[in-house]
Amino acid sequence: MSGNEQPVIILVHPQMGENIGMCARAMLNCGLTQLRLVAPRDGWPQESAKATAADADVVIENAEVFETLDDAIADCQRVFATTARDRAGGTPVATVDTAAAEIASHSGSRIGILFGPEASGLDRESISRADLLVRFTTNPDFPSLNLAQAVLLFGWEWKKQLAGDEGVEHAPPATRAEIANFLARLESQLEVTGFFLTEEMKPHSVRQLRSIFARALPNDQEVKLLHGVLSALAKSQTKD
Amino acid sequence: MSGNEQPVIILVHPQMGENIGMCARAMLNCGLTQLRLVAPRDGWPQESAKATAADADVVIENAEVFETLDDAIADCQRVFATTARDRAGGTPVATVDTAAAEIASHSGSRIGILFGPEASGLDRESISRADLLVRFTTNPDFPSLNLAQAVLLFGWEWKKQLAGDEGVEHAPPATRAEIANFLARLESQLEVTGFFLTEEMKPHSVRQLRSIFARALPNDQEVKLLHGVLSALAKSQTKD
Repeated sequence: MSGNEQPVIILVHPQMGENIGMCARAMLNCGLTQLRLVAPRDGWPQESAKATAADADVVIENAEVFETLDDAIADCQRVFATTARDRAGGTPVATVDTAAAEIASHSGSRIGILFGPEASGLDRESISRADLLVRFTTNPDFPSLNLAQAVLLFGWEWKKQLAGDEGVEHAPPATRAEIANFLARLESQLEVTGFFLTEEMKPHSVRQLRSIFARALPNDQEVKLLHGVLSALAKSQTKD
Repeated sequence: MSGNEQPVIILVHPQMGENIGMCARAMLNCGLTQLRLVAPRDGWPQESAKATAADADVVIENAEVFETLDDAIADCQRVFATTARDRAGGTPVATVDTAAAEIASHSGSRIGILFGPEASGLDRESISRADLLVRFTTNPDFPSLNLAQAVLLFGWEWKKQLAGDEGVEHAPPATRAEIANFLARLESQLEVTGFFLTEEMKPHSVRQLRSIFARALPNDQEVKLLHGVLSALAKSQTKD
């Protein structure tokens, strides 16, 4: 693994410190050490997290905290969302094993794996940041995993991949910050044109657009091109 | 699976009711329902087990209790012992995946899977009942799984044997004709704006744009949205 990026475990709005600690333990069991927390409900640091982390406190101590999900994924080139929801729009869905294989074949890219809050899972807003949805193939009559167990199963499948092949080489995609920047520009230009007919419709359209570009995994040069397109179109004055 | 035997999860001298409940939950997550307890430390039944089992109380209610391990495995045809210990005598050792494949290939046999007490794991006495040792390939520097997590990983691998991996699932994307139609419109609008600085550069930029949208695999609705974006931007008149 030397020189390769580990996937980053990103807990979005985690609720209980105990669960964060158990996630850290499950991570280290599988050799994962990079933990990010988006706006943990009870603040940070938390003693309860250290208690349940057992000897995985190194993961807890190095955990990074972010105010928003966009900040947490800004330096990621790919984003996977774990979810029990049905397919959201056009984002492809994979089993955990397939997702782990996908990570192994993208060594060199920083990949963030999103896990939602204990009670509710990831909301649609968060999911729309992902280029791949990860589904746990548990018992359909009793599917609900607790947070640490979901993290464990992901880490387990990831670790199994390490022993295996080195995979296909992909051009490194742009970071999410660069894509977010493009999307913000697109959104503000669309705002000016009255594209968003109602305020109610806007979040849905924005999510759809975000998802399309998230899945495309454009590289730096392509993001630059997309900016160029936007500039050009903004200048156009059609007469119809 | 109808007609086939499920493996039986056998907790040997489990200590805390909470952990028994979490094992039950992990079992049912993976479709496992047969739980046996050998001389649980705090007796049986236990309210704390029901509490952590979430809605897996059916597993708890049907759990069978035995005084000795020999009683618990009496009707089993094979016995696997999960352990972090090094090989004991001549008993073969397998990874969890291999053990799960072994179970799948012995459908019809009743197989008991032994898990030791939380603090110590299985002792040599218990291990000597096994015809196969099952080892979890966790991080060698931090190998220790809690009981429910070990049960979960076993169940997970067992469940995977039941059904093949489905791979990545995509929502049906729009046809390439629809995407080509959108791209043609984009290209002609860009043409008007002077986006393509030279005729030589144009094919390269067009290829790049085509590739971005090809990879995004937009569905019909998303292509419609992209058309809307194009219309909106074409009407925009920026003053810069």
